[in-house]
Amino acid sequence: MIAVVKDTATPEQVDHFVSWIEGKGLSAHISKGDNTTIIGLVGDTTQVDPYLIEGMDIIERVQRVSEPFKRANRKFHPLDTVVDCGHGVKVGGGTFNVIAGPCSVEGDNLIRIAREVKAAGATMLRGGAYKPRTSPYAYQGMGEKGLDILCAARDELDMPIVTEIMDPRDVDKFLSRNIEVWQIGARNAQNFPLLKEVGKTKTPILLKRGIAGTIDELLMAAEYIMSEGNPNVIVCERGIRTFETRTRNSFDLNAIPVLHGLTHLPVCADPSHATGHTRYVTPMALAATAAGADCLEIEVHDDPKHAWSDGAQALTPAQFRDAMARIAKVREAVTMEVE
Amino acid sequence: MIAVVKDTATPEQVDHFVSWIEGKGLSAHISKGDNTTIIGLVGDTTQVDPYLIEGMDIIERVQRVSEPFKRANRKFHPLDTVVDCGHGVKVGGGTFNVIAGPCSVEGDNLIRIAREVKAAGATMLRGGAYKPRTSPYAYQGMGEKGLDILCAARDELDMPIVTEIMDPRDVDKFLSRNIEVWQIGARNAQNFPLLKEVGKTKTPILLKRGIAGTIDELLMAAEYIMSEGNPNVIVCERGIRTFETRTRNSFDLNAIPVLHGLTHLPVCADPSHATGHTRYVTPMALAATAAGADCLEIEVHDDPKHAWSDGAQALTPAQFRDAMARIAKVREAVTMEVE
Amino acid sequence: MIAVVKDTATPEQVDHFVSWIEGKGLSAHISKGDNTTIIGLVGDTTQVDPYLIEGMDIIERVQRVSEPFKRANRKFHPLDTVVDCGHGVKVGGGTFNVIAGPCSVEGDNLIRIAREVKAAGATMLRGGAYKPRTSPYAYQGMGEKGLDILCAARDELDMPIVTEIMDPRDVDKFLSRNIEVWQIGARNAQNFPLLKEVGKTKTPILLKRGIAGTIDELLMAAEYIMSEGNPNVIVCERGIRTFETRTRNSFDLNAIPVLHGLTHLPVCADPSHATGHTRYVTPMALAATAAGADCLEIEVHDDPKHAWSDGAQALTPAQFRDAMARIAKVREAVTMEVE
Amino acid sequence: MIAVVKDTATPEQVDHFVSWIEGKGLSAHISKGDNTTIIGLVGDTTQVDPYLIEGMDIIERVQRVSEPFKRANRKFHPLDTVVDCGHGVKVGGGTFNVIAGPCSVEGDNLIRIAREVKAAGATMLRGGAYKPRTSPYAYQGMGEKGLDILCAARDELDMPIVTEIMDPRDVDKFLSRNIEVWQIGARNAQNFPLLKEVGKTKTPILLKRGIAGTIDELLMAAEYIMSEGNPNVIVCERGIRTFETRTRNSFDLNAIPVLHGLTHLPVCADPSHATGHTRYVTPMALAATAAGADCLEIEVHDDPKHAWSDGAQALTPAQFRDAMARIAKVREAVTMEVE
Repeated sequence: MIAVVKDTATPEQVDHFVSWIEGKGLSAHISKGDNTTIIGLVGDTTQVDPYLIEGMDIIERVQRVSEPFKRANRKFHPLDTVVDCGHGVKVGGGTFNVIAGPCSVEGDNLIRIAREVKAAGATMLRGGAYKPRTSPYAYQGMGEKGLDILCAARDELDMPIVTEIMDPRDVDKFLSRNIEVWQIGARNAQNFPLLKEVGKTKTPILLKRGIAGTIDELLMAAEYIMSEGNPNVIVCERGIRTFETRTRNSFDLNAIPVLHGLTHLPVCADPSHATGHTRYVTPMALAATAAGADCLEIEVHDDPKHAWSDGAQALTPAQFRDAMARIAKVREAVTMEVE
Repeated sequence: MIAVVKDTATPEQVDHFVSWIEGKGLSAHISKGDNTTIIGLVGDTTQVDPYLIEGMDIIERVQRVSEPFKRANRKFHPLDTVVDCGHGVKVGGGTFNVIAGPCSVEGDNLIRIAREVKAAGATMLRGGAYKPRTSPYAYQGMGEKGLDILCAARDELDMPIVTEIMDPRDVDKFLSRNIEVWQIGARNAQNFPLLKEVGKTKTPILLKRGIAGTIDELLMAAEYIMSEGNPNVIVCERGIRTFETRTRNSFDLNAIPVLHGLTHLPVCADPSHATGHTRYVTPMALAATAAGADCLEIEVHDDPKHAWSDGAQALTPAQFRDAMARIAKVREAVTMEVE
Repeated sequence: MIAVVKDTATPEQVDHFVSWIEGKGLSAHISKGDNTTIIGLVGDTTQVDPYLIEGMDIIERVQRVSEPFKRANRKFHPLDTVVDCGHGVKVGGGTFNVIAGPCSVEGDNLIRIAREVKAAGATMLRGGAYKPRTSPYAYQGMGEKGLDILCAARDELDMPIVTEIMDPRDVDKFLSRNIEVWQIGARNAQNFPLLKEVGKTKTPILLKRGIAGTIDELLMAAEYIMSEGNPNVIVCERGIRTFETRTRNSFDLNAIPVLHGLTHLPVCADPSHATGHTRYVTPMALAATAAGADCLEIEVHDDPKHAWSDGAQALTPAQFRDAMARIAKVREAVTMEVE
Repeated sequence: MIAVVKDTATPEQVDHFVSWIEGKGLSAHISKGDNTTIIGLVGDTTQVDPYLIEGMDIIERVQRVSEPFKRANRKFHPLDTVVDCGHGVKVGGGTFNVIAGPCSVEGDNLIRIAREVKAAGATMLRGGAYKPRTSPYAYQGMGEKGLDILCAARDELDMPIVTEIMDPRDVDKFLSRNIEVWQIGARNAQNFPLLKEVGKTKTPILLKRGIAGTIDELLMAAEYIMSEGNPNVIVCERGIRTFETRTRNSFDLNAIPVLHGLTHLPVCADPSHATGHTRYVTPMALAATAAGADCLEIEVHDDPKHAWSDGAQALTPAQFRDAMARIAKVREAVTMEVE
């Protein structure tokens, strides 16, 4: 962390600041320029609040130079984390997985869709039982009954299930059903009580980036979970909010190679929510794979126009099979040896 | 709501769509242009999911023309809502109030600061006991002990207190202490379980706009609270995330007159979080007042450089007194009669 | 285009508005709802200014439902445009091309780099002679001498050259040298005098999206060029400005399939400027190819750390060869037949 | 400027980098931390390209700590610049001015509107003769005839005129008519040939912030003009592009106090373009004044619904008089002495 000192600071004030820094167990290195004096704060700065320093009279600006996340940081943990999701599915470390299924669990059609996606090569089944919806008047999900339908599909098909948890009070419902992967949605990307609560388990967490979350904030959210003791986090790019309105979100695929550089955690990408329109899902699923995603999450529905939510972005099973064939070819491009 | 029909749609498909719409209790008006056919969906469209329709084969695009919020909508409730916060403080309907106090409750200094802000004209006291922090390693607040310190200040000074609730499991702690105004922070602007839970009380809620929340989403969050039975919502602009990095957020003051047009709820503005730097707080507090805010929330600390959080944006009591004098003059500009 | 009428409008006012619309050669279709009246404006609305209508007393809001661009619109020109760039290079219509070379023309090394990129499979050579730089103190390019160096490389290698034009007064310099493809940079995406000037030629234009330009604005800029008589436009996604700071821009790859749906013009993508860092260029070049780009523009330099501008994002020739091999494999995924 | 060195750098590489820095006439200060080594580059770094350094093998990241603008920088020029616009009008240094008039010059009504705005207290007259329009099919302005109409109004009313220049080839037309203030619009905020051309004159320039321009980029654009020899620049906040769609732009009023801190140049604000709707113009004009603007630019039209462009955001003369009375009162709040 560096602090830029104001021109008006006296030497005494600078000395006083340096003492304060040293009192925090850090050391301070001073660089005096013609117009600017910079103080480098050296040591474990993850616990120093930059805004606190910026509030001091003599300080003009503060900038972090090392990342504020530790457990999620590749510098301190160079090898890829592999998250074991059960039923033989491992995410990260050179593997490639596709999570597929409907946006919402709606009833009997779940098992039909599940069979289709498994046959096409999906390794995990998704479906929402608790749905975060912008409007209180929109469909809010089947709740526990939806969880049971998911579990029945898992038991029949021997594949892990992925479903969203929105409320820290629901942890027991998820634990008692041994739900393999808990999704934290974009709207809860900074719901710290929820992050802490799921951090107290060892369950794999599929953590989505907030709609206005920076890459660093995504990793700080992962850090919340990991600092409570749960190392099994998969981070997921799912589109960010920008000024462009032709798509529901802007899919920030740059985040995939950036995340691989910053963290050892596996990186997932969700082309369905990141585009919001069926016709863009396959090209963007290919693009996410090409950018180096370890995992994709894709919405599939056998009757999208009657789906209870987000039908506009679901692939049909036939479209999903087409996408999977192309994705496999793109993976070859990513993993092949070039002499 | 209008649906733009694709060129390729057959008359039979359009008829089928119209029947489907009518089956939902809406009526459909068709406008055929040279290149485009538009179907207007008329009736109560708040319960229709535009994404569902956009998923249909024959539909190119769907646009809402009426707002998806009802209880918060000024069209259905033209008169300003006045929220009674107790201790004689009423927000909205032509009144003007200032909430002031430290970012976090830290201990004995709260009562000192509280006396200062009350003397300067603040009508409500703020202070955080539960702090949402980006880093799990940053200070997380005093919790219940902080609530008790706030309550003691309230009792001594006879002024309502405003403090943040982050977890639906904390409702009883807030209710049992009769905390006058519960703040929902920007990070929880779409934490729907929390919104529903506070909606089951009658307590005034100070609802902050999400960092990437549109004005419509802010009103939909208010709608979540109101649809559970609590009409006492104050909406608050506190800065949005943009590409500009010289300030912590971009203060979207346009939102103030826009909100006054769309909703009958009182509108608050928070220049402290919207700027992130002490030196911008006073001018932006004046600007928010000039734009027509009903209420301001301003951080004040008597020793900002040692504050436990957000010291960089707190005014000193002397700065706050200066700001209050200018704010009073700006209010004259807003409310004066011009012949 | 639809106009939403205010509740307060009288029938006489609506009649008066309808007459005014009809006087413009359009027809008006009225849909009366319980809370909202909508008037559909039908006919050629490309010449109607929505802001003009929105300024009228009785109008609440105006929304376009058909696109404001005509010549660039796939609806009126369903077949892909193929832009002939000379030397046998055709862009669009199922072809695939890569433009490569240094950010700036610097001197003798251009021909060396050009030979490398040609050998690796690039079909066009790029290099900047006029450089738009944020700072007046940064290197501004070699000017005409740079153009001559480019032309010499073109003549030796028989490949078209691509270089940026910034000033309408430079058109003659470009024309007299028969420069094959003129690039309009992101900062000039709405420099209308420049767009009109290049529209008066028949030269292929590589038109970059503005840093805050919507997809529709990119197509309106193309429309400026096309409306002056030049149909040879290649549109190019090169990253947009968002709140994310880990990369120079956010690469909006969603724009590629969106553009293919809206326009018949070929679509290029520039992973170098869209990321700003060498280490992200190859994955994002693959991603852009996977998303369906017709053409890529990639910066290559044989000594990036001494490049005069943008060295941070250039590939070395060896990295470029690796990228080209993978890109070819990704193209197979995009173009293969899936039964 | 500081450079963060990668963990993998050898001492020899660091030494080599330091020599290179010193060869540029700068000095280098090294701070070694546990996880990070930082090198401070000290001296005149305005001519160092941070991207060049970031391209080097051993460098992880580069951050500026001092501003890249010099002539516009308050550090080197602490006193406010006062721009003399002729006819007795001086902008900056504690003065307050309002520019008013129609969006476009349309003909005879200009002089009528001009008399109204002058009577209400405006000190400068605006009107566009060259109009940058998103669509090539929209009205593009009267051109030279419009300039002549403006000059006639100026001569009758003895007040400076403000009008937009879009093309470097138009400089002579503006010079020969002695047009007092030349406006550079948001779309040309990085049109460097135009900025340089107007920099060769001594004419006051009203320089608008780009729609996605940072505050620093606005000051770098000013620097382009000033580095050519023209010190008479007024910078203008006019709204930025964000995700919010209820207003045409988001008015970044934080920029006003930020600019006052960074630069000695006068700061203008344009509530008409920043909101796009008449009903928000007055509150936001008050807000901009309260935030400390030295100058406002407001669109006024005596028949907004028939205006040729931007009628939706023009005030009527009566509305403008009301706004001016309130603005005067807000100025009292800004300038009053508080004991």
